[in-house]
Amino acid sequence: MVERRREGRLRRGERMVVMAHHLLNAPHRLFSLGTFVELLGAAKSTISEDLGFMRQAFDRFQLGKVETLAGAAGGVRYLPSPQRDRIRTLVEDACARLRDPSRVLPGGFLYTADLISTPSYAGPLGEAFAAFFEDSRPDVVLTMEVKGIPLALMTARAFDVPLVTIRRGTHATDGPAVSVNYLSGSSRTVQSMTLPLRAISPGARVLFIDDFLRGGGTARGVYDLMREFRADVAGIGVLIETPSPREKMIDRYISLMHFQGVNEKGEVQIAPSRFVLEAASAR
Amino acid sequence: MVERRREGRLRRGERMVVMAHHLLNAPHRLFSLGTFVELLGAAKSTISEDLGFMRQAFDRFQLGKVETLAGAAGGVRYLPSPQRDRIRTLVEDACARLRDPSRVLPGGFLYTADLISTPSYAGPLGEAFAAFFEDSRPDVVLTMEVKGIPLALMTARAFDVPLVTIRRGTHATDGPAVSVNYLSGSSRTVQSMTLPLRAISPGARVLFIDDFLRGGGTARGVYDLMREFRADVAGIGVLIETPSPREKMIDRYISLMHFQGVNEKGEVQIAPSRFVLEAASAR
Repeated sequence: MVERRREGRLRRGERMVVMAHHLLNAPHRLFSLGTFVELLGAAKSTISEDLGFMRQAFDRFQLGKVETLAGAAGGVRYLPSPQRDRIRTLVEDACARLRDPSRVLPGGFLYTADLISTPSYAGPLGEAFAAFFEDSRPDVVLTMEVKGIPLALMTARAFDVPLVTIRRGTHATDGPAVSVNYLSGSSRTVQSMTLPLRAISPGARVLFIDDFLRGGGTARGVYDLMREFRADVAGIGVLIETPSPREKMIDRYISLMHFQGVNEKGEVQIAPSRFVLEAASAR
Repeated sequence: MVERRREGRLRRGERMVVMAHHLLNAPHRLFSLGTFVELLGAAKSTISEDLGFMRQAFDRFQLGKVETLAGAAGGVRYLPSPQRDRIRTLVEDACARLRDPSRVLPGGFLYTADLISTPSYAGPLGEAFAAFFEDSRPDVVLTMEVKGIPLALMTARAFDVPLVTIRRGTHATDGPAVSVNYLSGSSRTVQSMTLPLRAISPGARVLFIDDFLRGGGTARGVYDLMREFRADVAGIGVLIETPSPREKMIDRYISLMHFQGVNEKGEVQIAPSRFVLEAASAR
């Protein structure tokens, strides 16, 4: 997607916004300095200096990291890496919106589909997951249809990796597939989840992102499914977890919100999770 | 998400990348110049001048439009608006990848899930849809679960509007809902689609985005469903259409690719649609 240089010399600010466009539109993707040298018709030292100014400005306004990697395989990339106090503000804002009593559905469910499908929330929440799992370096982000897809896609975008979606039941139209059974926490029934054989390569590092975790049956099923693919679950992140049951079927995961249900006054009890609070206070 | 100003005067390039960050992370969203005056501690005339340089650089490298709207309700916004020849290149590249014979599945289906779920494709394809439907000014992007969700989300992102996902069958966990029956083109059976009552407001302008159109039964169902919501279908965009059946159940739509099936040599016959080709040649 890189354009050739046009006529006329560019000013520093112009070079900087053109580079910012490339970096911001593809978070985590490594661009060689040579790409920008050719694109902008400027010396490598000039490009380096421009990137230095961009890094300073992004640092100062907490807009993420401009990371320069040295060496032959080096280059520059942009990591959204929101600060922990910014994640806390984002999660608190989303919780405040989810506390609207009109969101309570029969059965104690909470209507969240609108919020988590709105790009202006899904985008920053995906970047928050990417910040929590920055060290897990996933090759692919995995989710379970349907509601978690927007969050998972925006997480995949922040890592510049593909999204893979597990389907419930079995589907004929995706070719040879692997199915495993799992215990659905909410309905307490045995269900099956399916993934096309070609969807995940052996040895892949997989980050599972979902919208909701109650007992952890789905996440447990994801471990079983990934074992069949000889893939490695590098992390599990969920938007909302419930405190009950206390014993989850998985050990390690990160949630962004705790949903304790609706109290006798009809108030929705949802708040930032301990992961968000501890991370924010640690800085 | 706007930060307060820190110590020290900023250079033009620094102001420009900070503004670029805000604009690019929220395409279509209008930022008042006052927002940037306060954020960057610069005069309004300086901010205007910076934005002028940004506009020039984006124009020159075809990186989208920086649009300034005058007046009290005015401000500046970024429209990705890819040029038609760039859309054609993108679609041709995606078609080339989809021609891989290993993608042919039993029943003549084509495996597309990986490509359309990869953010580096879904993002630009969503921006392409947004360019085709720029004049339709949707309030919401609508899709049908499951495969079209990434494309629809990235289209919604390009318009800075929410995504709403129609579910197949009926679902109890989303509260009061409206269901309509529709004729599924691929299976020739009557199925139902459901949307929570609260998901779409009366009078909303809705852009329907889906991954595949054969007979148009699903899209026809969307018209019926939107009538129940008193919402207006402002456009229909699909990634792939098939030439057969020639008579579609809907009149107006845009597709990006034509899929004619697999020929006797086992070649996948998929190419940019007439909409993409005509638009590209018109400029």
